[in-house]
Amino acid sequence: MRFFSDNAAPACPQVMEALVRANQTDTAYDGDQWSRQLDDAFSALFSTEVRALWAPTGTAANALALAALCPPHGAILCHDRAHIQEDECGAPEFYTHGAKLMTCPGTDGKLTPGAVSALLATIRDDVHQVRPSALSITNASEYGLVYTPDEVAALGQLCRERNLGFHMDGARFANAVAYLGCNPADVTWRAGVDALSFGFVKNGGMIGEALVFFRPGLGAATLYRRKRGGHLLSKGRYLAAQLLAMLEGDLWLKNAQTANAAAALLAQAAGPRCLYPVQANEVFIRLAPHESEALRASGFDFYDWDDGSARLVTSWHHSAQDVQTLAEAIAAL
Amino acid sequence: MRFFSDNAAPACPQVMEALVRANQTDTAYDGDQWSRQLDDAFSALFSTEVRALWAPTGTAANALALAALCPPHGAILCHDRAHIQEDECGAPEFYTHGAKLMTCPGTDGKLTPGAVSALLATIRDDVHQVRPSALSITNASEYGLVYTPDEVAALGQLCRERNLGFHMDGARFANAVAYLGCNPADVTWRAGVDALSFGFVKNGGMIGEALVFFRPGLGAATLYRRKRGGHLLSKGRYLAAQLLAMLEGDLWLKNAQTANAAAALLAQAAGPRCLYPVQANEVFIRLAPHESEALRASGFDFYDWDDGSARLVTSWHHSAQDVQTLAEAIAAL
Amino acid sequence: MRFFSDNAAPACPQVMEALVRANQTDTAYDGDQWSRQLDDAFSALFSTEVRALWAPTGTAANALALAALCPPHGAILCHDRAHIQEDECGAPEFYTHGAKLMTCPGTDGKLTPGAVSALLATIRDDVHQVRPSALSITNASEYGLVYTPDEVAALGQLCRERNLGFHMDGARFANAVAYLGCNPADVTWRAGVDALSFGFVKNGGMIGEALVFFRPGLGAATLYRRKRGGHLLSKGRYLAAQLLAMLEGDLWLKNAQTANAAAALLAQAAGPRCLYPVQANEVFIRLAPHESEALRASGFDFYDWDDGSARLVTSWHHSAQDVQTLAEAIAAL
Amino acid sequence: MRFFSDNAAPACPQVMEALVRANQTDTAYDGDQWSRQLDDAFSALFSTEVRALWAPTGTAANALALAALCPPHGAILCHDRAHIQEDECGAPEFYTHGAKLMTCPGTDGKLTPGAVSALLATIRDDVHQVRPSALSITNASEYGLVYTPDEVAALGQLCRERNLGFHMDGARFANAVAYLGCNPADVTWRAGVDALSFGFVKNGGMIGEALVFFRPGLGAATLYRRKRGGHLLSKGRYLAAQLLAMLEGDLWLKNAQTANAAAALLAQAAGPRCLYPVQANEVFIRLAPHESEALRASGFDFYDWDDGSARLVTSWHHSAQDVQTLAEAIAAL
Repeated sequence: MRFFSDNAAPACPQVMEALVRANQTDTAYDGDQWSRQLDDAFSALFSTEVRALWAPTGTAANALALAALCPPHGAILCHDRAHIQEDECGAPEFYTHGAKLMTCPGTDGKLTPGAVSALLATIRDDVHQVRPSALSITNASEYGLVYTPDEVAALGQLCRERNLGFHMDGARFANAVAYLGCNPADVTWRAGVDALSFGFVKNGGMIGEALVFFRPGLGAATLYRRKRGGHLLSKGRYLAAQLLAMLEGDLWLKNAQTANAAAALLAQAAGPRCLYPVQANEVFIRLAPHESEALRASGFDFYDWDDGSARLVTSWHHSAQDVQTLAEAIAAL
Repeated sequence: MRFFSDNAAPACPQVMEALVRANQTDTAYDGDQWSRQLDDAFSALFSTEVRALWAPTGTAANALALAALCPPHGAILCHDRAHIQEDECGAPEFYTHGAKLMTCPGTDGKLTPGAVSALLATIRDDVHQVRPSALSITNASEYGLVYTPDEVAALGQLCRERNLGFHMDGARFANAVAYLGCNPADVTWRAGVDALSFGFVKNGGMIGEALVFFRPGLGAATLYRRKRGGHLLSKGRYLAAQLLAMLEGDLWLKNAQTANAAAALLAQAAGPRCLYPVQANEVFIRLAPHESEALRASGFDFYDWDDGSARLVTSWHHSAQDVQTLAEAIAAL
Repeated sequence: MRFFSDNAAPACPQVMEALVRANQTDTAYDGDQWSRQLDDAFSALFSTEVRALWAPTGTAANALALAALCPPHGAILCHDRAHIQEDECGAPEFYTHGAKLMTCPGTDGKLTPGAVSALLATIRDDVHQVRPSALSITNASEYGLVYTPDEVAALGQLCRERNLGFHMDGARFANAVAYLGCNPADVTWRAGVDALSFGFVKNGGMIGEALVFFRPGLGAATLYRRKRGGHLLSKGRYLAAQLLAMLEGDLWLKNAQTANAAAALLAQAAGPRCLYPVQANEVFIRLAPHESEALRASGFDFYDWDDGSARLVTSWHHSAQDVQTLAEAIAAL
Repeated sequence: MRFFSDNAAPACPQVMEALVRANQTDTAYDGDQWSRQLDDAFSALFSTEVRALWAPTGTAANALALAALCPPHGAILCHDRAHIQEDECGAPEFYTHGAKLMTCPGTDGKLTPGAVSALLATIRDDVHQVRPSALSITNASEYGLVYTPDEVAALGQLCRERNLGFHMDGARFANAVAYLGCNPADVTWRAGVDALSFGFVKNGGMIGEALVFFRPGLGAATLYRRKRGGHLLSKGRYLAAQLLAMLEGDLWLKNAQTANAAAALLAQAAGPRCLYPVQANEVFIRLAPHESEALRASGFDFYDWDDGSARLVTSWHHSAQDVQTLAEAIAAL
């Protein structure tokens, strides 16, 4: 039973069905009937006019968003364990043509206005230093914690004051909204977010994430950058159809609720072993080496985090039975 | 009936079935059982050890190949109507970090050693000019003509003499091989090609092309560039599974044979209207405006090429009936 | 006697004296008393408010200007023999992060609105092609011909209509103005030019060119790009002092008049051997191989142009005697 | 009296004389008699065959060196207060096309093998992270401390073990060697350094630094990058002549000895106010706000460092009298 990554899960049935339905002749690139629905569908979801583009990966969505917000001589502020800093092989640097990521620490992968202000205070306003241009946060964070609308709004306020673009890496945005129970608008544009990488692949999709611009004007140059980056798929309808299927009937939210519930169950079983509050679908637990070994021997796999803890990730696909079995195994350690 | 582009066709049944079979839990990125088979499968096809990577688009495959062959201060030589020059919004420039595409003319989209040599002769060997580093040809060409093994080998010989990397854009490589009836090795590495963008999407795939390095050492840095470009899909198994399904039982070749046969039928009907010999799955025909209008009124769509001709593209998906109907409509003009 | 290049000439006495005067303690980078005078001095010269920056080379000035006018996914239109296309090893591509130079032919190195419009007509308005963003012309041209204010204004009008930034490579701008006898404003901003690379080194300077923005807002990001490009010299006062010395008493114009007069004398001697009208300080003449050899044996050096002609370049430094001697030698061939 | 920066000092008399001597007709770019001497002159100084290029700024030299050592998907390891990280507006990112600078802390601006190894240990060896490719140290450091040959050799050993290129930012290399009293070879190539940015401007030059490759093969592509970066000055002889003048009779060393002696005198006067041992020409001292004010009122200027201390920088140009006056003023606080 794999708790290694939510990327390990298959695509959910509704996505597979959508692919079958979309498997017909239509216009290439993003001229098809599905791709042309995206702006409206995401505008409806977010209760405001947005520009929504599909992209094949979260890394592409993040990098395209950041390229829209930060010039080559700019700086992107982010958490020191942010995915864009640690896990994308410099994609933000590539797409921004060499902007600098400047990081600050933060408990549980979350940034505060204080921490960001402290970082900003170290940057001189002269041409010898790169110019702070964008802030990027991850919601849910790399450690599975969730920014509330108020927390995002406080950062959004800082961004406005300091003239920073505001990006949210929402690889697990669905899990965050499932936890918050809020309107997705509350934790994004109403809180000052300019661009959202809205993840679907970890949440039941096969291939295809959404890049949502809450300032629609940011989308125009991005269309060129997407093509130039090699991300304008010739049969883009298969991506669009997946995204639409995930929006249909709030499947994105239901899948995330399932995953979150599984994580909550594991957290309950792990009790004080948990390193962080479990709010989304990631559980970091302390395990002694022999305990790790024992769990693996029982058929569970997971990721050894670099601090020695174990990361367990749940997904829409984990059966109640599998989760229960793992919870019991953890409790029995 | 759409003859606008082979990208308009759906994915073929075997690809859809492969996606269903691959829809299970496995390792993320390219660590899954399907991705790990690619090197072997393509090595078998080409009768030599190759390094084969999936990429979501042909543009990505082309740009990654060229970045492996040409430094930022280099030049890539290509046809003046090459897809990399005309239709990729500068992706080669982006991935090579600003290399220059230098173009030469050539009948029917094909280059000759003479034309390339003439271009090379205009480039001084000093640091004031970019350094010629790679040659890129398209097989089948943008006009649907096919380079023979001998023609490729003559260019390959020139590349060796002039120390140029040799790239083949094979968005319609299958159609070229189907026309030639040769071993795919004959028209690639045996003729000096270093890297091949091997297209599957136009030929029945959904999402996923192959980038094949005949000098396997070129692959190492490409793995970093692919990730950095945002092209390392988290569920890469769905791309790999498609490619393997296309190789299975030479489906790639059969689909291309179907498309080529349809184009041949159209060419026969068009007779002297054809601008070029029809060797692959593209037919360029002269149409008067009222003839274009009439064809469209009969339910056929096609692309108005910038020289005023009509481009008709056939695919694996066109039924014999559809093709016959169009052939008759053309013959009746 | 060297007629190889105007870069071969030494710095003129007034520049050397300015360096001696500036050889004192002052603020680093561009905070010194000389650098701070540049905006005013060039604004006075051009009778409008400009932003003027020093740069160490014409290539740097050109590349910085183009980076201010063209995004990475844009195209720069220029003559097919333009210095930015042929002689800067891709500096424009480097500073624009991979924009594409698209070239058109033109008699004598000059472009016309017709030729530019014809090039524009080949570029589709979709994301598969780079977006035309800037036009760059060279005045005086690479063949020593001069654009008149009317000719520039016609191109400027086209730029406004097509939303193109307008750059003038003025490596020999002084020679052009000396020929025209006009106000420098007439052939630049009044004719629609946005940015001028104003050359001084070929005209008696040692190190230092000016980049003049007629839309001052373009300068802000350029200050970052200049630093980032490694062009913010720590003792910038020595560049600024040279530029100011060249502006003082219109030395830039007088030096150019001297050079132009020398070229005119050579042109008169060469008569029908001249390939182009001689308007600035370059003379291209037809020479048979034995004639080239004879001239060289007499102690004259010059550049063998790639069309087999000889390029003779005059400068502020050529003595009337030297020029007379060469003129006689040519006439005697 | 300015102790703000060694860049504030004028060029020294020998450099001015060299410029006058070089002020004659010669070949453009780096084909002149002075530029062609550089390889030999620096090879003699370093007792090994080197490739030496002039560059207009230290930022350019650093960025070109790093571009020779690190691919776009690589990481450059450096001190968290390194000039390349803090003061070059992302020039290393620009020239490497987006490599990532990864920093580690270190007392007094110096790195140790332990600190570098600790940083390396945090970087996974997979394509999701950039690949550590180069180490860059500054000698003398940003805080005026000097790496000994043994210290450099220990880092050089680590570089060899971990396959890292090794760059030394020697903006104040002369001051370091003056302090060490060693052969310049001992603290560079004999200790494993691959590329040195050898500073002259802070040490009495006007315009022109040297980029020295101890692995001469690194120079070839750098010639293209230098041109492409806009750093191939058309009258390069004026840079080469300055460098040669500074090497003549070890002027570079004598100027540095003068500056170091001045700093030592100030350090002695400052006593326990000094934050760091004073080894080169920078003195960081603790000053209360009223003390800073008093010193400034007495006619001394200096830089307010971001930790609240005052940075005093001495140069070849400070007279014994000036230094003595400042020393007394400090002692009298």
